[in-house]
Amino acid sequence: TLQHLFKEIFKAGLELQEDDHRKALLVSRKKHPENTVVEIRGAKIGAGSQQLIFGPCAVESYEQVATVAEAVKAKGLKLLRGGAYKPRTSPYDFQGLGVEGLKILKRVADEYDLGVISEIVSPADIEMAAEYIDVIQIGARNMQNFELLKAAGAVNKPILLKRGLAATIEEFINAAEYIMAQGNGQIILCERGIRTYERATRNTLDISAVPILKQETHLPVLVDVTHSTGRRDLLLPTAKAALAIGADGVMAEVHPDPAVALSDSAQQMDLKQFDEFMEQLMASSLVRS
Amino acid sequence: TLQHLFKEIFKAGLELQEDDHRKALLVSRKKHPENTVVEIRGAKIGAGSQQLIFGPCAVESYEQVATVAEAVKAKGLKLLRGGAYKPRTSPYDFQGLGVEGLKILKRVADEYDLGVISEIVSPADIEMAAEYIDVIQIGARNMQNFELLKAAGAVNKPILLKRGLAATIEEFINAAEYIMAQGNGQIILCERGIRTYERATRNTLDISAVPILKQETHLPVLVDVTHSTGRRDLLLPTAKAALAIGADGVMAEVHPDPAVALSDSAQQMDLKQFDEFMEQLMASSLVRS
Amino acid sequence: TLQHLFKEIFKAGLELQEDDHRKALLVSRKKHPENTVVEIRGAKIGAGSQQLIFGPCAVESYEQVATVAEAVKAKGLKLLRGGAYKPRTSPYDFQGLGVEGLKILKRVADEYDLGVISEIVSPADIEMAAEYIDVIQIGARNMQNFELLKAAGAVNKPILLKRGLAATIEEFINAAEYIMAQGNGQIILCERGIRTYERATRNTLDISAVPILKQETHLPVLVDVTHSTGRRDLLLPTAKAALAIGADGVMAEVHPDPAVALSDSAQQMDLKQFDEFMEQLMASSLVRS
Amino acid sequence: TLQHLFKEIFKAGLELQEDDHRKALLVSRKKHPENTVVEIRGAKIGAGSQQLIFGPCAVESYEQVATVAEAVKAKGLKLLRGGAYKPRTSPYDFQGLGVEGLKILKRVADEYDLGVISEIVSPADIEMAAEYIDVIQIGARNMQNFELLKAAGAVNKPILLKRGLAATIEEFINAAEYIMAQGNGQIILCERGIRTYERATRNTLDISAVPILKQETHLPVLVDVTHSTGRRDLLLPTAKAALAIGADGVMAEVHPDPAVALSDSAQQMDLKQFDEFMEQLMASSLVRS
Repeated sequence: TLQHLFKEIFKAGLELQEDDHRKALLVSRKKHPENTVVEIRGAKIGAGSQQLIFGPCAVESYEQVATVAEAVKAKGLKLLRGGAYKPRTSPYDFQGLGVEGLKILKRVADEYDLGVISEIVSPADIEMAAEYIDVIQIGARNMQNFELLKAAGAVNKPILLKRGLAATIEEFINAAEYIMAQGNGQIILCERGIRTYERATRNTLDISAVPILKQETHLPVLVDVTHSTGRRDLLLPTAKAALAIGADGVMAEVHPDPAVALSDSAQQMDLKQFDEFMEQLMASSLVRS
Repeated sequence: TLQHLFKEIFKAGLELQEDDHRKALLVSRKKHPENTVVEIRGAKIGAGSQQLIFGPCAVESYEQVATVAEAVKAKGLKLLRGGAYKPRTSPYDFQGLGVEGLKILKRVADEYDLGVISEIVSPADIEMAAEYIDVIQIGARNMQNFELLKAAGAVNKPILLKRGLAATIEEFINAAEYIMAQGNGQIILCERGIRTYERATRNTLDISAVPILKQETHLPVLVDVTHSTGRRDLLLPTAKAALAIGADGVMAEVHPDPAVALSDSAQQMDLKQFDEFMEQLMASSLVRS
Repeated sequence: TLQHLFKEIFKAGLELQEDDHRKALLVSRKKHPENTVVEIRGAKIGAGSQQLIFGPCAVESYEQVATVAEAVKAKGLKLLRGGAYKPRTSPYDFQGLGVEGLKILKRVADEYDLGVISEIVSPADIEMAAEYIDVIQIGARNMQNFELLKAAGAVNKPILLKRGLAATIEEFINAAEYIMAQGNGQIILCERGIRTYERATRNTLDISAVPILKQETHLPVLVDVTHSTGRRDLLLPTAKAALAIGADGVMAEVHPDPAVALSDSAQQMDLKQFDEFMEQLMASSLVRS
Repeated sequence: TLQHLFKEIFKAGLELQEDDHRKALLVSRKKHPENTVVEIRGAKIGAGSQQLIFGPCAVESYEQVATVAEAVKAKGLKLLRGGAYKPRTSPYDFQGLGVEGLKILKRVADEYDLGVISEIVSPADIEMAAEYIDVIQIGARNMQNFELLKAAGAVNKPILLKRGLAATIEEFINAAEYIMAQGNGQIILCERGIRTYERATRNTLDISAVPILKQETHLPVLVDVTHSTGRRDLLLPTAKAALAIGADGVMAEVHPDPAVALSDSAQQMDLKQFDEFMEQLMASSLVRS
């Protein structure tokens, strides 16, 4: 019937329109079909092999970070994470060591030849941080802190952008666009769980976001299994799922002594758990290297 | 300090208490550490190998079901799904063929020697349905239809219980307990996505629910990739994630001609897509058989 | 430009379409512009005045119900609620007195000349229940138990339909349509909070749903302040909001001794709190009578 | 039994603990039982009377703002809102006039003697902004931009803090604490809807948050009816609910010509709708002045 035809024209038109809109984005795969490859001290993210990234939630001391770095290095891994600036719900919680933390990270990174990732929370600190670390992380709470995104877009340094606590995939992609629109295309996306009604996990890992982001953008996509689950016992199974679904890498937290950690003590692995995690993950033959 | 000690005692007490509660459930792994294995016409679910289950959203005709069954059989698979009773949001949408649909399923199941799964929506139909089908499905909208659960618990037939649209894992486990409390322990759980704010997918596949359910209960756990994503292009990657994370099987919808399907036309695979899906899934060497 | 014009035609077309769809529903205000008025033992819901409905979560004994009924009657109110069948998350929680509960309700209702509302959970019980109670309630967990809705549509008795735990307004309206499509148009809708990530309240009262439902349908709309908040201290403020926004009435739970209640003890008012609640609500001059 | 007693001790202990924690917060009513009253050019928020605050989504020109200011003034109102910096999902959407917008707001505020509220998005702009506007707004996307909160805590200017898109009430209270911990106690909280699965409204107005925030903190609480609903037809009913539940005021957007507005055109009232809105709201006798 005529009405049905009319509907079909509508649908076609709507899709064309959305298509056009997406094509316009610099981060869109329609604009740039090849994968973006981000290189960090020789380690490539987005080039096919899958990177495993570990480190403590917060930088607490040189010894703490060096201990983890040694374990990371011993496993042949190339990347380390650690927080120097910690955005915390309460102003009275430990807020990180700040620039002292960045200095520790740089020292350890140089000593162990590891690429190091750390979160920056203020636009004013972005340039300074670029001298100490290899990848600037924009955290979940700041995913729509557009001033920070713009500042991150203005430096020549890879940016790891985490999905917001309750951000849609569309908002996530647009946040990346804020960075790229300023000229910096070295962007790594990171799914870290979304806020839902379910209380068995800290957040709900939106595993489908990985193939969607890979399809819609040309950027590499990681999965942070620590923050998405908030449970040590789920790190290994979710890491497997992330690798199987095609993520470019997995992040998880490791601390020499989680029980005394200044933040997130319940969800970090200790070194023995880290060994077991890696052993079982490698045994699964899921890691593409 | 004393206060700290006090807190620790509290925590310990609370955990003990919750522990006790869970131990009390018949479906709990604490009560019964071994995996429950459900056998359907010789196919075992929960015994280590992973089952792949396909079929049309709704039973529309003998020819339609037989066509899919032939494709399923040709791939060496043993289970078929298809809806005879369709709970639909609107009373004016197609509600399924009812008992005629069950008869078609039985005929096809017998001809192709496949175990067949179909949803039942009324307590009054449970016993009758047990004569036609191999597994009675309780759908997401009925996960807390306790009268239906009790009726399902009173027959000697495997039950496939889908997680509710916005059910917590705890509610899901308790819904299974309603069935087992009536004497029927042949229960298969099925994660099928939960309702969240995200609109890129029909529901959000809660992949972490799989290891949690495997850990908390002794029941086999499937993942329905069709209803969790609502997108044909996500069936393959989410199936891989489900298998890697340890699901006992994957369900997806296949229809000979999705464009004319009476329900869910946008998310069903046609036979060619089904071939490609299976080829790529088997090539991934993720399927434990 | 041409493209813009094209877009506008699309939008117009889409709206027309949706409009048509809604007009088609029997519960739609477009189909029937006048308010539906439901009459229960002389009390009218939907006719302009606002009804206040109280009673215990579960019927536990004749004395318990009669005590509340006396308090209700003393305040000049006309309606009483109480659960005889209690759908509970766990099979081991108190499930209600069943038909004995209905008999108690009928006896109390007759003695105090109050209209009485009670939930029914099985299609097989609907006709029987119609002999004991004045309004059959379909609970949140059964909002999409379509067999129950159809059975409710087949009796000549008012139906109080609660919104599902995580039902959209559109699904809620369609659930009402299931009842009306069977011939029973005496339907009262009840907003009772939706499931969200927020944990300060048991559910999140979706207060905007009230004007939307009043606008989209011709049915009366109540607000259940007990289940939406789960907090005794929020009953009064949310009741005020419900009345101010135009609800046709408010429901809340009252129990002679909440501490020993067999269900929901933390959120029911005792008789003294009920007195205070009514005093303050009447003093607010918000109740349209 | 002994076990029950043990449980009760636990519960009591837990509550004590949480209680202590809340008491420690500067924004807590336990710390400071009296209402905080914020004074803006003579208008008091939190002192009992309820303020109505209107203005365009974005400042577009002097004429635009002046036209709205005239209408606001004519109704005897004292406060005006308007955005000079607009955090937008896409980098290609209109981002506001920036400091030029602030200058327009100051000129209009002085000419019409109205207190003016405007959002600031960068810590670096807070001090500058304090010279132009009467209240600095921290928007929903920046509720956990802790650097911005700290900067806001360091100026002597009232801060209007909006609840984050998916922030819990606890996180909201802690965000306010970030400001007050820096020395600035002139804080106004604003509920503006939360992100849920429901699509009938842009967000879900969490009306219960108002009494909870009033109870937990000593700060004034507003409701933004425009952003919580995203629907012009819901502004009046939700404003009534907000006033009835005890909010200290209501915010809504008014634009001389919404159809050509550079942002949020669908949800702003034009001047005629604004007249009707005010007429009906005043007729309801809900506004405490």
